[in-house]
Amino acid sequence: MNYDLIVIGSGPAGYVAAIRAGQTGLKTLVIDKKYIGGMCLNWGCIPTKSILESAKLFKRMKTGAAEFGIEGFKPEELQFNWLQAVKRSTGIVQKLSRGIEYLWKKNGVEFLSAEAKLLSPNEVEANKLIYTAKNILIATGSKPAKLSELPKAIELEEFLSLAELPEKPILYGRGAIIVEYAQFFAMLGKTPTIIASDLPLVPKLDAYLEAFIIKKLKKDKVKVIPASGIMVKGDSIYFEDKQIEHDAIINCSLREAVLPASEIDLELAEGYLATDEFYRTNIASIFAMGDVNGKSYLAHAASAQGLSVINFIQGSQEADESVYPINIYSDPEMAQIGFTEAELKTKGIEYQSREFSLNANGKALAEGTAEGFIRLLFETKYHQVLGVQIVAANATDLIAEAGILLELEGTVYDLAKTVHAHPTIAEVFMDVASI
Amino acid sequence: MNYDLIVIGSGPAGYVAAIRAGQTGLKTLVIDKKYIGGMCLNWGCIPTKSILESAKLFKRMKTGAAEFGIEGFKPEELQFNWLQAVKRSTGIVQKLSRGIEYLWKKNGVEFLSAEAKLLSPNEVEANKLIYTAKNILIATGSKPAKLSELPKAIELEEFLSLAELPEKPILYGRGAIIVEYAQFFAMLGKTPTIIASDLPLVPKLDAYLEAFIIKKLKKDKVKVIPASGIMVKGDSIYFEDKQIEHDAIINCSLREAVLPASEIDLELAEGYLATDEFYRTNIASIFAMGDVNGKSYLAHAASAQGLSVINFIQGSQEADESVYPINIYSDPEMAQIGFTEAELKTKGIEYQSREFSLNANGKALAEGTAEGFIRLLFETKYHQVLGVQIVAANATDLIAEAGILLELEGTVYDLAKTVHAHPTIAEVFMDVASI
Repeated sequence: MNYDLIVIGSGPAGYVAAIRAGQTGLKTLVIDKKYIGGMCLNWGCIPTKSILESAKLFKRMKTGAAEFGIEGFKPEELQFNWLQAVKRSTGIVQKLSRGIEYLWKKNGVEFLSAEAKLLSPNEVEANKLIYTAKNILIATGSKPAKLSELPKAIELEEFLSLAELPEKPILYGRGAIIVEYAQFFAMLGKTPTIIASDLPLVPKLDAYLEAFIIKKLKKDKVKVIPASGIMVKGDSIYFEDKQIEHDAIINCSLREAVLPASEIDLELAEGYLATDEFYRTNIASIFAMGDVNGKSYLAHAASAQGLSVINFIQGSQEADESVYPINIYSDPEMAQIGFTEAELKTKGIEYQSREFSLNANGKALAEGTAEGFIRLLFETKYHQVLGVQIVAANATDLIAEAGILLELEGTVYDLAKTVHAHPTIAEVFMDVASI
Repeated sequence: MNYDLIVIGSGPAGYVAAIRAGQTGLKTLVIDKKYIGGMCLNWGCIPTKSILESAKLFKRMKTGAAEFGIEGFKPEELQFNWLQAVKRSTGIVQKLSRGIEYLWKKNGVEFLSAEAKLLSPNEVEANKLIYTAKNILIATGSKPAKLSELPKAIELEEFLSLAELPEKPILYGRGAIIVEYAQFFAMLGKTPTIIASDLPLVPKLDAYLEAFIIKKLKKDKVKVIPASGIMVKGDSIYFEDKQIEHDAIINCSLREAVLPASEIDLELAEGYLATDEFYRTNIASIFAMGDVNGKSYLAHAASAQGLSVINFIQGSQEADESVYPINIYSDPEMAQIGFTEAELKTKGIEYQSREFSLNANGKALAEGTAEGFIRLLFETKYHQVLGVQIVAANATDLIAEAGILLELEGTVYDLAKTVHAHPTIAEVFMDVASI
């Protein structure tokens, strides 16, 4: 069985690369040991956003609907049906999964559900058969590091299978996901505790956003405790000699690479597959994209890397220099793109920062979502925008405007003179640029 | 009483111009016969968006909350408290109004609540006093044309004062506002009928969006009837010999200029104040901005014109060539920027169009808002994007990305290679560009 390309792993790196490969005429086989779409589609991005939407609506109905003029129900009697929220999420995942299958078929991509093992630079074994290909793409992803510090933790892959939600969960780890889970529980009126394996709580975030989210969690009554202060005795966990009440522990540890089974020596760098600027491993025919190469944990970065590899195989010599936005689906949402202040300082770039609050924005007030701001970081000479940070109910979509601005190397003046529609939350881009 | 500048009218043209004038050191007086903020703030953009948010939440709770897993209430028992929705809206308007006052004070702008009358190129009478200024800006806005076709119509300025909502209102007129009002009533379970004074229902919209909204109104069970087929007998209104049941008529006619009282001859063009490319009237010291000059009815266009006039007074010779997005706060929202297909054809520009649906977008599915699309119009040579049209729950904010793209003369390729965060609705920009 000969292919132009074998893709191992079908998450956002693998499935996107496979579609593009098929589109460009490569005979392509995708092998995945579990479900189409990988962590992102099955246990990550999509299901968490689905259940978060449920929690956000629950909170809005409980605390905001009366203000909006909606009556005929008692907020205190509202209940959250966890299994129904999961059922809805599962329906969405299935729909998207069928969408990927459809696009694969349309572009002649084959799929095999099996565990893959690399045998040689051009051979992969799966289901006891040997498949050969000119190129092999490894997109096996990552998963949270096993939690040795605490007893019996629930893994994220198990979370959606819980029969009921814990009332007092401990969330152990770091990153955007721990913030999202903590607020998910808080919005449902439960009592989560974060044990932060390290600080900052969300790596790579600008210190300004980190400070905001720490303050916000406090306001939401979510305790954030440093792991260094924890003592474990059997099933009991203590902080400053006081027992932390809990009925579940959820593992939100930082992720580590899931390496494929292999009979050939793939070079590693700090536990990840080592790659060059074209995502090539030490074996010229083998590429590694997405989390497994350790360059980023972001789904959209993985997809961009996947596309870049197909472009390279098809003859492009352009290295992937994409700028990746970071989104947190918190309440309110947070988003960031470009350099952080710390990065600008390290690079010695002279910069200014400017911020404009959402609390005088007509649309945000109309929606009842006026908590937040847009913040610009720009170099002082031409005022080219180098970084944008947003806190807003819809920050994760608003950041797209900043993406185009950075891609086209736009300035604060460009932003100021672009007429933004009234009333919109995006007007704040114009406001902050016009200060 | 001598000023550098007198601004007549305090809507989005006037209040923005006054703030900028103050910031640039001009001694400025604003005169308005009614409330700070004009139509937009007091009866238009802001209150309609506030009550629409109430109606959208009502509909979501009534039809969607159970699917999201929220229980403990009976959808059929939910009621809409109109007076509470108005109260919330009024609070927002007051907050924003105070915001304008604050910015005026901060920048040394004075305000007078009175009816203004132009006496000469440099004199204005108000409260029986004469005020003089080097320049006068007329920003008196517009209002719906008086409705002679039908009996006893409610004006939009009266709508928020209604003690209760009609059950079967007739909405007479055209434009974005008639769509928004019709859906407002439909979302609350009422039975609105649109009598369209002419077609297309929303002028200046691309025919593709017009077709979408007409179909959507039909799906929402909103009848759209052409005014040409109407017969009026006393208080009864007939269409094709059948009486249209109604308990109110709301005037949503297209707007016409509100001209200031004047003892000098200001040149008119089709009922509007005639202006040149710098918004100068036939009197060199007098400018006209916003609806009253007939160039646009958009609040953000009015503000942009206001800023442009202050720039001109301060020495800039750059004409305002801004591209204005058009937003409709429908359900789902609609937005458009740049050229329509009809305009491209008239101009003889060779173009292509591309569309990508939201129905396979993970974030839209997670939010339960997957109805819609993003559509690009671009010229065939360099693939520069010349027009963007969006239908999406948050289309009015999404269009801002297209605004920057058009401002910076970006191409389909720029859009395709800009990494959009996953999962976001804005990803559809990348999808449609990558087809």
